[in-house]
Amino acid sequence: MKDFIFGTRPVIEALQAAQTLDTIYIKKDLGSELAGELLEAARAAGVPVKRVPVERLNRLTRKNHQGVVATVAAVTYYKVDQVVPMLYDNGENPLLVVLDGVTDVRNFGALARTADCAGVSALVIPERDSVSVNADAVKTSAGALNYVPVCREHNLVKSLRYLRDSGVKIVGTSDKRSVAHTAVDLTGPVAIVLGAEDRGISPEVLELCHECVAIPEFGHINSLNVSVAGGILMYEAVRQRLADGQAAPAAQ
Amino acid sequence: MKDFIFGTRPVIEALQAAQTLDTIYIKKDLGSELAGELLEAARAAGVPVKRVPVERLNRLTRKNHQGVVATVAAVTYYKVDQVVPMLYDNGENPLLVVLDGVTDVRNFGALARTADCAGVSALVIPERDSVSVNADAVKTSAGALNYVPVCREHNLVKSLRYLRDSGVKIVGTSDKRSVAHTAVDLTGPVAIVLGAEDRGISPEVLELCHECVAIPEFGHINSLNVSVAGGILMYEAVRQRLADGQAAPAAQ
Repeated sequence: MKDFIFGTRPVIEALQAAQTLDTIYIKKDLGSELAGELLEAARAAGVPVKRVPVERLNRLTRKNHQGVVATVAAVTYYKVDQVVPMLYDNGENPLLVVLDGVTDVRNFGALARTADCAGVSALVIPERDSVSVNADAVKTSAGALNYVPVCREHNLVKSLRYLRDSGVKIVGTSDKRSVAHTAVDLTGPVAIVLGAEDRGISPEVLELCHECVAIPEFGHINSLNVSVAGGILMYEAVRQRLADGQAAPAAQ
Repeated sequence: MKDFIFGTRPVIEALQAAQTLDTIYIKKDLGSELAGELLEAARAAGVPVKRVPVERLNRLTRKNHQGVVATVAAVTYYKVDQVVPMLYDNGENPLLVVLDGVTDVRNFGALARTADCAGVSALVIPERDSVSVNADAVKTSAGALNYVPVCREHNLVKSLRYLRDSGVKIVGTSDKRSVAHTAVDLTGPVAIVLGAEDRGISPEVLELCHECVAIPEFGHINSLNVSVAGGILMYEAVRQRLADGQAAPAAQ
Protein backbone atom coordinates (compact mmCIF):
# COMPACT_ATOMS: atom_id res chain seq x y z
CA MET A 1 0.00 0.00 0.00
CA LYS A 2 1.23 3.49 -0.83
CA ASP A 3 1.45 5.68 2.24
CA PHE A 4 1.65 9.00 0.40
CA ILE A 5 0.26 10.51 -2.78
CA PHE A 6 2.08 13.48 -4.29
CA GLY A 7 0.92 16.26 -6.60
CA THR A 8 -2.33 18.12 -7.09
CA ARG A 9 -3.72 16.03 -9.96
CA PRO A 10 -2.94 12.59 -8.42
CA VAL A 11 -4.55 13.62 -5.12
CA ILE A 12 -7.69 14.86 -6.93
CA GLU A 13 -7.81 11.55 -8.80
CA ALA A 14 -7.46 9.59 -5.56
CA LEU A 15 -10.35 11.56 -4.08
CA GLN A 16 -12.47 10.94 -7.17
CA ALA A 17 -11.64 7.22 -7.01
CA ALA A 18 -12.96 7.27 -3.41
CA GLN A 19 -9.58 6.22 -2.01
CA THR A 20 -9.57 6.92 1.73
CA LEU A 21 -7.11 9.69 2.46
CA ASP A 22 -6.15 10.59 5.98
CA THR A 23 -5.00 14.18 5.57
CA ILE A 24 -4.05 16.44 2.65
CA TYR A 25 -1.11 18.77 3.27
CA ILE A 26 -1.02 21.83 1.02
CA LYS A 27 1.75 24.40 0.70
CA LYS A 28 0.64 27.55 2.53
CA ASP A 29 0.48 29.87 -0.50
CA LEU A 30 -0.77 27.39 -3.13
CA GLY A 31 -3.54 29.12 -5.04
CA SER A 32 -3.90 27.77 -8.58
CA GLU A 33 -7.23 26.95 -10.21
CA LEU A 34 -6.40 23.25 -9.83
CA ALA A 35 -5.84 23.85 -6.11
CA GLY A 36 -9.37 25.21 -5.88
CA GLU A 37 -10.64 22.04 -7.51
CA LEU A 38 -8.63 19.98 -5.01
CA LEU A 39 -10.06 21.86 -2.01
CA GLU A 40 -13.56 21.33 -3.36
CA ALA A 41 -12.98 17.58 -3.85
CA ALA A 42 -11.44 17.26 -0.37
CA ARG A 43 -14.39 19.04 1.22
CA ALA A 44 -16.83 16.78 -0.62
CA ALA A 45 -14.92 13.66 0.51
CA GLY A 46 -14.59 14.88 4.09
CA VAL A 47 -10.79 14.77 4.11
CA PRO A 48 -9.14 17.41 6.28
CA VAL A 49 -6.75 19.83 4.56
CA LYS A 50 -3.82 21.36 6.39
CA ARG A 51 -1.89 24.38 5.09
CA VAL A 52 1.77 23.92 5.96
CA PRO A 53 5.12 25.55 5.12
CA VAL A 54 6.73 24.02 2.00
CA GLU A 55 9.62 22.79 4.17
CA ARG A 56 7.28 20.34 5.87
CA LEU A 57 6.29 18.88 2.48
CA ASN A 58 9.95 18.63 1.53
CA ARG A 59 10.58 16.62 4.67
CA LEU A 60 7.85 14.16 3.65
CA THR A 61 9.27 13.54 0.18
CA ARG A 62 12.02 14.50 -2.23
CA LYS A 63 9.75 13.91 -5.16
CA ASN A 64 8.11 16.73 -7.10
CA HIS A 65 5.07 17.23 -4.88
CA GLN A 66 3.90 20.49 -6.51
CA GLY A 67 2.88 21.71 -3.07
CA VAL A 68 0.44 18.86 -2.34
CA VAL A 69 1.00 15.68 -0.32
CA ALA A 70 -1.78 13.37 0.90
CA THR A 71 -1.39 10.62 3.48
CA VAL A 72 -3.34 7.48 2.71
CA ALA A 73 -5.44 6.07 5.55
CA ALA A 74 -4.69 2.50 6.63
CA VAL A 75 -8.42 1.82 7.00
CA THR A 76 -11.60 2.90 5.28
CA TYR A 77 -13.33 5.64 7.23
CA TYR A 78 -17.08 5.52 7.68
CA LYS A 79 -19.62 8.06 8.93
CA VAL A 80 -22.03 7.43 11.80
CA ASP A 81 -24.98 8.27 9.56
CA GLN A 82 -23.95 5.36 7.30
CA VAL A 83 -23.17 2.91 10.09
CA VAL A 84 -26.03 3.44 12.54
CA PRO A 85 -28.93 2.94 10.08
CA MET A 86 -27.15 -0.20 8.84
CA LEU A 87 -26.92 -1.54 12.40
CA TYR A 88 -30.62 -0.92 12.99
CA ASP A 89 -31.45 -2.52 9.62
CA ASN A 90 -29.50 -5.63 10.67
CA GLY A 91 -31.43 -5.79 13.92
CA GLU A 92 -28.30 -5.02 15.94
CA ASN A 93 -28.14 -3.09 19.17
CA PRO A 94 -25.55 -0.32 18.58
CA LEU A 95 -22.61 -0.09 20.97
CA LEU A 96 -20.39 2.78 19.86
CA VAL A 97 -17.20 4.06 21.44
CA VAL A 98 -16.51 7.74 20.79
CA LEU A 99 -12.97 9.00 21.32
CA ASP A 100 -13.00 12.73 21.99
CA GLY A 101 -9.39 13.74 21.48
CA VAL A 102 -7.52 10.50 22.15
CA THR A 103 -4.21 11.21 20.42
CA ASP A 104 -1.91 8.42 21.60
CA VAL A 105 -1.59 5.78 18.88
CA ARG A 106 -0.90 3.00 21.39
CA ASN A 107 -4.01 3.81 23.41
CA PHE A 108 -6.05 4.04 20.24
CA GLY A 109 -4.76 0.68 19.01
CA ALA A 110 -5.41 -0.93 22.40
CA LEU A 111 -8.96 0.46 22.44
CA ALA A 112 -9.59 -0.91 18.93
CA ARG A 113 -8.30 -4.31 20.03
CA THR A 114 -10.67 -4.37 22.99
CA ALA A 115 -13.52 -3.04 20.84
CA ASP A 116 -13.10 -6.03 18.52
CA CYS A 117 -13.23 -8.46 21.47
CA ALA A 118 -16.26 -6.76 23.03
CA GLY A 119 -18.16 -6.76 19.75
CA VAL A 120 -18.34 -2.95 19.59
CA SER A 121 -20.25 -1.75 16.50
CA ALA A 122 -17.88 1.09 15.60
CA LEU A 123 -15.30 3.51 16.91
CA VAL A 124 -16.00 7.21 16.34
CA ILE A 125 -13.20 9.76 16.13
CA PRO A 126 -13.16 13.43 15.15
CA GLU A 127 -11.14 14.66 12.17
CA ARG A 128 -9.16 17.11 14.26
CA ASP A 129 -7.18 16.53 17.47
CA SER A 130 -7.29 12.79 17.02
CA VAL A 131 -4.98 9.99 16.00
CA SER A 132 -4.28 9.20 12.38
CA VAL A 133 -5.30 5.63 11.77
CA ASN A 134 -1.95 4.70 10.27
CA ALA A 135 0.03 1.49 9.98
CA ASP A 136 1.26 1.89 13.59
CA ALA A 137 -2.29 2.08 14.87
CA VAL A 138 -3.27 -1.05 12.92
CA LYS A 139 -0.22 -2.86 14.31
CA THR A 140 -0.91 -1.82 17.93
CA SER A 141 -4.51 -2.94 17.48
CA ALA A 142 -3.20 -6.44 16.64
CA GLY A 143 -5.06 -6.09 13.34
CA ALA A 144 -8.41 -5.29 14.98
CA LEU A 145 -8.65 -2.07 12.93
CA ASN A 146 -9.11 -4.24 9.85
CA TYR A 147 -12.44 -5.35 11.37
CA VAL A 148 -13.86 -2.68 13.67
CA PRO A 149 -15.36 0.15 11.57
CA VAL A 150 -13.92 3.61 12.31
CA CYS A 151 -16.22 6.58 11.77
CA ARG A 152 -14.28 9.79 11.31
CA GLU A 153 -16.48 12.81 11.85
CA HIS A 154 -15.92 16.37 10.72
CA ASN A 155 -17.96 17.76 13.59
CA LEU A 156 -18.23 15.51 16.63
CA VAL A 157 -20.94 17.61 18.27
CA LYS A 158 -23.12 17.35 15.16
CA SER A 159 -22.52 13.58 15.00
CA LEU A 160 -23.49 13.16 18.65
CA ARG A 161 -26.68 15.15 17.98
CA TYR A 162 -27.35 12.76 15.10
CA LEU A 163 -26.82 9.80 17.44
CA ARG A 164 -29.19 11.33 20.03
CA ASP A 165 -31.82 11.81 17.33
CA SER A 166 -31.32 8.17 16.31
CA GLY A 167 -32.19 6.90 19.77
CA VAL A 168 -28.63 6.31 20.94
CA LYS A 169 -27.92 7.13 24.59
CA ILE A 170 -24.74 9.19 24.97
CA VAL A 171 -22.79 8.16 28.06
CA GLY A 172 -19.84 10.35 28.94
CA THR A 173 -17.01 9.68 31.33
CA SER A 174 -16.11 12.37 33.81
CA ASP A 175 -15.07 12.64 37.43
CA LYS A 176 -17.59 15.41 38.01
CA ARG A 177 -21.35 14.98 38.52
CA SER A 178 -21.06 11.26 37.71
CA VAL A 179 -22.54 8.00 38.90
CA ALA A 180 -20.75 4.63 39.03
CA HIS A 181 -20.45 3.03 35.59
CA THR A 182 -22.37 -0.01 36.82
CA ALA A 183 -25.36 2.14 37.84
CA VAL A 184 -26.20 3.32 34.31
CA ASP A 185 -28.33 1.25 31.95
CA LEU A 186 -26.20 0.28 28.96
CA THR A 187 -28.55 -2.35 27.55
CA GLY A 188 -30.05 -0.14 24.82
CA PRO A 189 -28.34 1.60 21.91
CA VAL A 190 -25.45 3.46 23.52
CA ALA A 191 -22.38 5.52 22.67
CA ILE A 192 -19.67 5.59 25.34
CA VAL A 193 -17.56 8.75 25.09
CA LEU A 194 -13.96 8.57 26.29
CA GLY A 195 -12.02 11.79 26.70
CA ALA A 196 -8.55 13.00 25.87
CA GLU A 197 -5.75 11.55 28.00
CA ASP A 198 -5.07 14.92 29.63
CA ARG A 199 -8.14 17.12 29.36
CA GLY A 200 -11.00 14.61 29.39
CA ILE A 201 -14.17 15.17 27.40
CA SER A 202 -14.62 18.64 25.90
CA PRO A 203 -17.39 20.78 27.49
CA GLU A 204 -19.54 20.93 24.32
CA VAL A 205 -19.47 17.12 24.08
CA LEU A 206 -20.17 16.74 27.80
CA GLU A 207 -23.29 18.86 27.34
CA LEU A 208 -24.69 16.32 24.88
CA CYS A 209 -24.27 13.34 27.22
CA HIS A 210 -27.49 11.89 28.62
CA GLU A 211 -25.56 10.56 31.59
CA CYS A 212 -22.03 10.75 32.92
CA VAL A 213 -20.28 7.84 34.58
CA ALA A 214 -17.07 7.42 36.54
CA ILE A 215 -15.27 4.19 37.33
CA PRO A 216 -14.88 4.19 41.11
CA GLU A 217 -11.27 4.48 42.27
CA PHE A 218 -9.92 3.60 45.69
CA GLY A 219 -6.17 4.13 45.49
CA HIS A 220 -3.50 6.80 45.61
CA ILE A 221 -2.83 7.38 41.93
CA ASN A 222 -6.40 7.09 40.72
CA SER A 223 -5.76 7.63 37.06
CA LEU A 224 -6.91 4.68 35.02
CA ASN A 225 -5.29 4.52 31.62
CA VAL A 226 -7.85 5.41 28.95
CA SER A 227 -7.47 2.04 27.21
CA VAL A 228 -8.09 0.17 30.48
CA ALA A 229 -11.01 2.43 31.40
CA GLY A 230 -12.45 1.86 27.92
CA GLY A 231 -12.12 -1.90 28.35
CA ILE A 232 -13.92 -1.82 31.70
CA LEU A 233 -16.78 0.25 30.24
CA MET A 234 -17.15 -1.81 27.06
CA TYR A 235 -17.31 -5.02 29.09
CA GLU A 236 -19.78 -3.50 31.56
CA ALA A 237 -22.05 -2.95 28.55
CA VAL A 238 -21.44 -6.56 27.45
CA ARG A 239 -22.20 -7.81 30.96
CA GLN A 240 -25.48 -5.86 31.17
CA ARG A 241 -26.58 -6.95 27.71
CA LEU A 242 -25.90 -10.65 28.33
CA ALA A 243 -27.59 -10.42 31.75
CA ASP A 244 -30.53 -8.80 29.93
CA GLY A 245 -30.84 -11.94 27.81
CA GLN A 246 -29.60 -10.33 24.61
CA ALA A 247 -27.77 -12.44 22.04
CA ALA A 248 -23.99 -12.09 21.87
CA PRO A 249 -22.96 -9.51 19.27
CA ALA A 250 -22.04 -10.94 15.86
CA ALA A 251 -18.53 -10.27 14.56
CA GLN A 252 -18.67 -7.41 12.02
CA MET B 1 18.79 5.74 44.45
CA LYS B 2 21.65 3.48 43.38
CA ASP B 3 20.57 1.07 40.65
CA PHE B 4 23.52 -1.31 40.98
CA ILE B 5 25.79 -2.61 43.72
CA PHE B 6 29.20 -3.99 42.73
CA GLY B 7 31.50 -6.45 44.42
CA THR B 8 31.00 -9.47 46.66
CA ARG B 9 31.40 -7.74 50.01
CA PRO B 10 29.12 -4.73 49.23
CA VAL B 11 26.38 -7.06 47.96
CA ILE B 12 26.61 -9.21 51.11
CA GLU B 13 26.38 -6.05 53.21
CA ALA B 14 23.34 -4.88 51.25
CA LEU B 15 21.66 -8.23 51.89
CA GLN B 16 22.50 -8.06 55.58
CA ALA B 17 21.12 -4.51 55.73
CA ALA B 18 17.87 -5.92 54.30
CA GLN B 19 18.13 -3.71 51.23
CA THR B 20 15.75 -5.07 48.57
CA LEU B 21 17.78 -6.44 45.70
CA ASP B 22 16.16 -7.49 42.48
CA THR B 23 18.70 -9.94 41.09
CA ILE B 24 22.32 -10.83 41.81
CA TYR B 25 24.48 -11.56 38.77
CA ILE B 26 27.54 -13.69 39.44
CA LYS B 27 30.38 -14.51 37.09
CA LYS B 28 29.94 -18.13 35.90
CA ASP B 29 33.08 -19.57 37.51
CA LEU B 30 33.20 -17.50 40.71
CA GLY B 31 33.97 -19.88 43.57
CA SER B 32 35.70 -18.16 46.47
CA GLU B 33 34.77 -18.70 50.12
CA LEU B 34 33.22 -15.23 50.13
CA ALA B 35 31.11 -16.25 47.16
CA GLY B 36 29.72 -19.12 49.19
CA GLU B 37 28.79 -16.66 51.92
CA LEU B 38 27.10 -14.47 49.31
CA LEU B 39 25.04 -17.35 47.92
CA GLU B 40 23.93 -18.27 51.43
CA ALA B 41 22.89 -14.69 52.21
CA ALA B 42 21.05 -14.41 48.88
CA ARG B 43 19.16 -17.63 49.53
CA ALA B 44 18.17 -16.46 53.01
CA ALA B 45 16.94 -13.13 51.63
CA GLY B 46 15.10 -14.76 48.73
CA VAL B 47 16.99 -12.88 46.05
CA PRO B 48 17.51 -14.82 42.80
CA VAL B 49 21.08 -15.41 41.67
CA LYS B 50 22.00 -15.71 38.00
CA ARG B 51 25.31 -17.12 36.78
CA VAL B 52 26.38 -15.14 33.71
CA PRO B 53 29.49 -14.81 31.51
CA VAL B 54 31.86 -12.13 32.77
CA GLU B 55 31.23 -10.10 29.57
CA ARG B 56 27.68 -9.48 30.70
CA LEU B 57 28.94 -8.01 33.99
CA ASN B 58 31.41 -5.88 32.07
CA ARG B 59 28.56 -4.47 30.02
CA LEU B 60 26.75 -3.48 33.23
CA THR B 61 29.71 -1.56 34.65
CA ARG B 62 33.32 -0.58 34.05
CA LYS B 63 33.96 -0.56 37.76
CA ASN B 64 35.80 -3.33 39.54
CA HIS B 65 32.87 -5.67 40.10
CA GLN B 66 34.92 -8.70 41.27
CA GLY B 67 32.48 -10.92 39.42
CA VAL B 68 29.38 -9.77 41.34
CA VAL B 69 26.74 -7.19 40.36
CA ALA B 70 23.37 -6.77 42.08
CA THR B 71 20.46 -4.76 40.73
CA VAL B 72 18.56 -2.82 43.36
CA ALA B 73 14.78 -3.19 43.32
CA ALA B 74 12.75 -0.02 42.87
CA VAL B 75 10.21 -1.24 45.42
CA THR B 76 10.23 -3.28 48.61
CA TYR B 77 9.21 -6.85 47.92
CA TYR B 78 6.83 -8.59 50.30
CA LYS B 79 5.77 -12.21 50.71
CA VAL B 80 2.16 -13.41 50.61
CA ASP B 81 2.55 -15.02 54.04
CA GLN B 82 3.35 -11.56 55.45
CA VAL B 83 0.65 -9.68 53.55
CA VAL B 84 -2.36 -11.99 53.80
CA PRO B 85 -2.39 -12.39 57.63
CA MET B 86 -2.03 -8.60 57.89
CA LEU B 87 -5.03 -8.12 55.61
CA TYR B 88 -7.15 -10.48 57.70
CA ASP B 89 -5.96 -8.77 60.89
CA ASN B 90 -7.11 -5.44 59.48
CA GLY B 91 -10.51 -6.89 58.68
CA GLU B 92 -9.90 -6.52 54.95
CA ASN B 93 -11.20 -8.80 52.23
CA PRO B 94 -8.12 -9.84 50.20
CA LEU B 95 -8.14 -9.17 46.47
CA LEU B 96 -4.83 -10.37 45.02
CA VAL B 97 -3.64 -10.32 41.44
CA VAL B 98 -1.11 -13.02 40.60
CA LEU B 99 1.00 -12.57 37.45
CA ASP B 100 2.23 -15.93 36.22
CA GLY B 101 5.00 -15.01 33.80
CA VAL B 102 4.00 -11.49 32.73
CA THR B 103 7.31 -10.19 31.40
CA ASP B 104 6.42 -6.98 29.59
CA VAL B 105 7.28 -3.99 31.76
CA ARG B 106 4.58 -1.80 30.17
CA ASN B 107 1.89 -4.39 30.83
CA PHE B 108 3.14 -4.84 34.37
CA GLY B 109 3.14 -1.10 35.00
CA ALA B 110 -0.35 -0.75 33.52
CA LEU B 111 -1.63 -3.61 35.71
CA ALA B 112 -0.13 -1.98 38.81
CA ARG B 113 -1.79 1.31 37.89
CA THR B 114 -5.19 -0.37 37.59
CA ALA B 115 -4.56 -2.37 40.76
CA ASP B 116 -4.09 0.87 42.67
CA CYS B 117 -7.36 2.27 41.30
CA ALA B 118 -9.29 -0.93 42.02
CA GLY B 119 -8.00 -1.13 45.59
CA VAL B 120 -6.20 -4.43 45.00
CA SER B 121 -4.48 -5.71 48.17
CA ALA B 122 -1.26 -6.85 46.50
CA LEU B 123 0.32 -8.00 43.26
CA VAL B 124 2.05 -11.37 43.34
CA ILE B 125 4.90 -12.22 40.96
CA PRO B 126 7.32 -15.13 40.77
CA GLU B 127 11.07 -14.64 41.10
CA ARG B 128 11.79 -16.25 37.74
CA ASP B 129 10.30 -15.51 34.32
CA SER B 130 8.81 -12.26 35.51
CA VAL B 131 9.46 -8.56 35.18
CA SER B 132 12.02 -6.77 37.27
CA VAL B 133 10.25 -4.06 39.19
CA ASN B 134 12.66 -1.39 38.04
CA ALA B 135 12.44 2.35 37.54
CA ASP B 136 10.74 1.83 34.14
CA ALA B 137 8.02 -0.27 35.76
CA VAL B 138 7.43 2.37 38.43
CA LYS B 139 7.23 5.05 35.74
CA THR B 140 4.78 3.07 33.57
CA SER B 141 2.66 2.46 36.65
CA ALA B 142 2.34 6.24 37.05
CA GLY B 143 3.83 5.77 40.51
CA ALA B 144 1.26 3.17 41.60
CA LEU B 145 4.08 0.74 42.46
CA ASN B 146 4.99 3.04 45.32
CA TYR B 147 1.64 2.12 46.90
CA VAL B 148 0.49 -1.33 45.76
CA PRO B 149 2.49 -4.01 47.63
CA VAL B 150 4.35 -6.45 45.37
CA CYS B 151 4.89 -9.98 46.72
CA ARG B 152 7.74 -11.73 44.96
CA GLU B 153 7.59 -15.47 45.51
CA HIS B 154 10.34 -18.02 45.09
CA ASN B 155 7.85 -20.77 44.28
CA LEU B 156 4.52 -19.61 42.92
CA VAL B 157 2.90 -23.04 43.28
CA LYS B 158 3.80 -23.15 46.97
CA SER B 159 2.50 -19.61 47.46
CA LEU B 160 -0.80 -20.48 45.78
CA ARG B 161 -1.11 -23.50 48.05
CA TYR B 162 -0.54 -21.17 51.00
CA LEU B 163 -3.29 -18.89 49.68
CA ARG B 164 -5.67 -21.83 49.27
CA ASP B 165 -4.94 -22.91 52.84
CA SER B 166 -5.65 -19.34 53.96
CA GLY B 167 -9.14 -19.39 52.53
CA VAL B 168 -8.34 -17.48 49.35
CA LYS B 169 -10.16 -18.62 46.22
CA ILE B 170 -7.78 -18.99 43.27
CA VAL B 171 -9.41 -17.85 40.03
CA GLY B 172 -7.43 -18.55 36.87
CA THR B 173 -7.91 -17.17 33.40
CA SER B 174 -7.93 -19.58 30.52
CA ASP B 175 -9.81 -20.11 27.28
CA LYS B 176 -10.32 -23.78 28.07
CA ARG B 177 -12.87 -25.25 30.48
CA SER B 178 -13.84 -21.76 31.63
CA VAL B 179 -17.00 -19.90 32.57
CA ALA B 180 -17.69 -16.22 31.95
CA HIS B 181 -15.84 -13.97 34.39
CA THR B 182 -19.15 -12.51 35.57
CA ALA B 183 -20.47 -15.98 36.53
CA VAL B 184 -17.88 -16.62 39.26
CA ASP B 185 -18.31 -15.32 42.80
CA LEU B 186 -15.51 -12.85 43.52
CA THR B 187 -17.00 -11.41 46.71
CA GLY B 188 -14.84 -13.43 49.13
CA PRO B 189 -11.06 -13.50 49.52
CA VAL B 190 -9.79 -14.08 45.99
CA ALA B 191 -6.60 -14.25 43.94
CA ILE B 192 -7.01 -13.61 40.21
CA VAL B 193 -4.25 -15.29 38.21
CA LEU B 194 -3.24 -13.72 34.90
CA GLY B 195 -1.01 -15.67 32.54
CA ALA B 196 1.99 -14.91 30.39
CA GLU B 197 1.31 -12.83 27.27
CA ASP B 198 2.08 -15.74 24.97
CA ARG B 199 1.64 -19.00 26.85
CA GLY B 200 -1.06 -18.19 29.39
CA ILE B 201 -1.07 -19.71 32.85
CA SER B 202 1.34 -22.59 33.45
CA PRO B 203 -0.25 -26.05 33.88
CA GLU B 204 0.88 -26.52 37.49
CA VAL B 205 -0.65 -23.16 38.43
CA LEU B 206 -3.83 -23.93 36.49
CA GLU B 207 -4.20 -27.10 38.56
CA LEU B 208 -4.38 -25.06 41.75
CA CYS B 209 -7.19 -22.82 40.51
CA HIS B 210 -10.57 -23.35 42.16
CA GLU B 211 -12.25 -21.94 39.08
CA CYS B 212 -11.23 -20.77 35.65
CA VAL B 213 -12.81 -17.80 33.92
CA ALA B 214 -12.67 -16.37 30.44
CA ILE B 215 -13.77 -12.94 29.32
CA PRO B 216 -16.24 -13.55 26.48
CA GLU B 217 -14.97 -12.38 23.09
CA PHE B 218 -17.08 -11.72 20.02
CA GLY B 219 -14.69 -10.41 17.39
CA HIS B 220 -12.10 -11.49 14.86
CA ILE B 221 -8.86 -10.89 16.74
CA ASN B 222 -10.06 -12.02 20.14
CA SER B 223 -6.90 -11.40 22.06
CA LEU B 224 -7.45 -8.97 24.87
CA ASN B 225 -4.26 -7.33 26.04
CA VAL B 226 -3.33 -8.72 29.48
CA SER B 227 -3.46 -5.29 31.10
CA VAL B 228 -6.96 -4.66 29.73
CA ALA B 229 -8.14 -8.17 30.69
CA GLY B 230 -6.71 -7.60 34.18
CA GLY B 231 -8.58 -4.32 34.46
CA ILE B 232 -11.86 -5.93 33.45
CA LEU B 233 -11.41 -8.72 36.01
CA MET B 234 -10.32 -6.45 38.88
CA TYR B 235 -13.33 -4.21 38.29
CA GLU B 236 -15.67 -7.19 38.05
CA ALA B 237 -14.51 -8.08 41.57
CA VAL B 238 -15.09 -4.46 42.64
CA ARG B 239 -18.57 -4.49 41.09
CA GLN B 240 -19.55 -7.72 42.84
CA ARG B 241 -18.20 -6.58 46.19
CA LEU B 242 -19.98 -3.22 46.08
CA ALA B 243 -23.20 -4.93 44.93
CA ASP B 244 -22.73 -7.30 47.89
CA GLY B 245 -22.85 -4.29 50.21
CA GLN B 246 -19.19 -4.42 51.16
CA ALA B 247 -17.39 -1.21 52.04
CA ALA B 248 -15.10 0.28 49.42
CA PRO B 249 -11.51 -0.89 49.88
CA ALA B 250 -9.29 1.50 51.83
CA ALA B 251 -6.19 2.84 50.10
CA GLN B 252 -3.14 0.85 51.28
